[in-house]
Amino acid sequence: MEQRISLAHGSGGKLARDLIEKTIVPRLGNPALANLADAADLDFNGRRLLFTTDSFVIKPLEFPGGDIGKLAVCGTVNDLAVSGARPLWISCGLIIEETFPMSRLERIIDSLSEAAAEAGVSVVCGDTKVVERGSADGLFINTAGIGAPIDGFSPSAIQPGDKVIISGTIGDHEAAVFRAREELGHKLTLDSDCAPLHDLVATMLSAAGSIRVMRDPTRGGVGAVLNELAAHTACSIRVEEAALPIKPEVLGMCELVGFDPIYLANEGKLVCIVSSADTDALLAAMQAHPLGKDAAIIGEVTADERERIYLRTAFGGSRIVSLPTGVQLPRIC
Amino acid sequence: MEQRISLAHGSGGKLARDLIEKTIVPRLGNPALANLADAADLDFNGRRLLFTTDSFVIKPLEFPGGDIGKLAVCGTVNDLAVSGARPLWISCGLIIEETFPMSRLERIIDSLSEAAAEAGVSVVCGDTKVVERGSADGLFINTAGIGAPIDGFSPSAIQPGDKVIISGTIGDHEAAVFRAREELGHKLTLDSDCAPLHDLVATMLSAAGSIRVMRDPTRGGVGAVLNELAAHTACSIRVEEAALPIKPEVLGMCELVGFDPIYLANEGKLVCIVSSADTDALLAAMQAHPLGKDAAIIGEVTADERERIYLRTAFGGSRIVSLPTGVQLPRIC
Repeated sequence: MEQRISLAHGSGGKLARDLIEKTIVPRLGNPALANLADAADLDFNGRRLLFTTDSFVIKPLEFPGGDIGKLAVCGTVNDLAVSGARPLWISCGLIIEETFPMSRLERIIDSLSEAAAEAGVSVVCGDTKVVERGSADGLFINTAGIGAPIDGFSPSAIQPGDKVIISGTIGDHEAAVFRAREELGHKLTLDSDCAPLHDLVATMLSAAGSIRVMRDPTRGGVGAVLNELAAHTACSIRVEEAALPIKPEVLGMCELVGFDPIYLANEGKLVCIVSSADTDALLAAMQAHPLGKDAAIIGEVTADERERIYLRTAFGGSRIVSLPTGVQLPRIC
Repeated sequence: MEQRISLAHGSGGKLARDLIEKTIVPRLGNPALANLADAADLDFNGRRLLFTTDSFVIKPLEFPGGDIGKLAVCGTVNDLAVSGARPLWISCGLIIEETFPMSRLERIIDSLSEAAAEAGVSVVCGDTKVVERGSADGLFINTAGIGAPIDGFSPSAIQPGDKVIISGTIGDHEAAVFRAREELGHKLTLDSDCAPLHDLVATMLSAAGSIRVMRDPTRGGVGAVLNELAAHTACSIRVEEAALPIKPEVLGMCELVGFDPIYLANEGKLVCIVSSADTDALLAAMQAHPLGKDAAIIGEVTADERERIYLRTAFGGSRIVSLPTGVQLPRIC
């Protein structure tokens, strides 16, 4: 039977990784793409330049705490930020479904503009396409971003004993989207965490010289990101479930519908791995920043060469956190 | 009644221009965006950098002479080329409809890869999203591109007496898409002109020092581009209909369905305006290049301050070529 694209190919999980690693990258192969980082690290005429892109297909377009316009800025800004770059410019490509209300488009572009101002980036080029009714779902936005490296960040290999830090509560974004979409009927008190992380990253890089790596846990959440970070390192990571910051309403939603919080998407959080020696200084600096006030140490790199993520549960048991194989909720970004 | 987006908002015509100039740009306003060039001209740490983006929603995805993958490379490469830049890197954002055949995706990415190799660019970053069946039409691709300026090109104001050159036959792309879509039943002998123009541009810049401006006449065709080029110049442009290179089968299609060839989209052509003195040398250089062999002088800049495009017909009459107000054929790129 012919193989076809499924929703899971667009998740942060195993099928998505297979599609990228086996189908796409080999066909386009080049060193910049092959390392599958959040942003390509390039030499522009003697100057390092970071370049990244993301398309946004979130549903609904407006959700508690943000909309697709804000998300399209934050997503790309954050890919640059966690790559150690100061975001400079973004592009904006709109694909609009015929009959889309003009007032709604204006509202979303206003939001995109505000988010760009907050993130300190300019939208310098764009494109607008319109497709017939039924050929798209309202509005899709693509942004690509260019950044310049922040001095003082040189990613390095993770080592046993390094600590894993998350910048705040997990799952807020996916939970907010779920609640907006399902119209659960009760008052929405939960907002998406959608926010630009460039300033938090700058603060972190000033505070600690030995940050090994940073990632933003969007699709596939902390579970997917930690698997990516452990790959090809000959190390494993042990995570303490009790240390994961999570809001009670997010945990409640997970229990209600059977989602695993470790795979929930975030849009204003980052995971970093830092040397044991720098951990306290870094954590203090993060907690002093508005976007890092709930930062916590959630685990440690271990010498286990199987490159696995172990979650030590509150009851003292341990389970392996694999790359997610399906998709919990499609179109969360 | 609430204003809604129509297909014409995505054309190269007046509604599209209004949407961009009145709704989008004022909200995102900054100098780089405001000049509405094909690419933003930026200062990256002391080095000039050109940045552009385009989304591709063409239907059908595969057409005589190309497919959406090739088009996604050529479209962005050409925006950089006509801005006087050597294309270096592109991003690739895929939005795929659930159940899209994997083999078709592979074929399109192979084509995109071949086009990138031909254009001398690397695909250095990407993103893949999947939406539910019915929420997109197969596959949309966004590419953003970064280029470095080619020495020796400094755009300048057009002046009365300057000549207008087109690099080859007009309308091949839109005609090929039309014929592919309408399944006219007869054998398709007409291919899209879809091609990367970076090398032709380099040849042109070596041959002539006084090229005022270059544009690729995609959506809205030569008619839309000439209107853009005349705007804010206090000059008009007179075009000789008989001088427009056009294939007989394209002209035949236009007569059959009532399309105006001057508005037909091209994906491997450029329009340039050059000083009268450099015209012969430039035309000869273009005609010696495979992608410019049918290049022709099609008109002249005049001192008429109304910034209009006049088409002198084969019968000696003259009509004004305005920005198109509707859309001849949607989704041709």
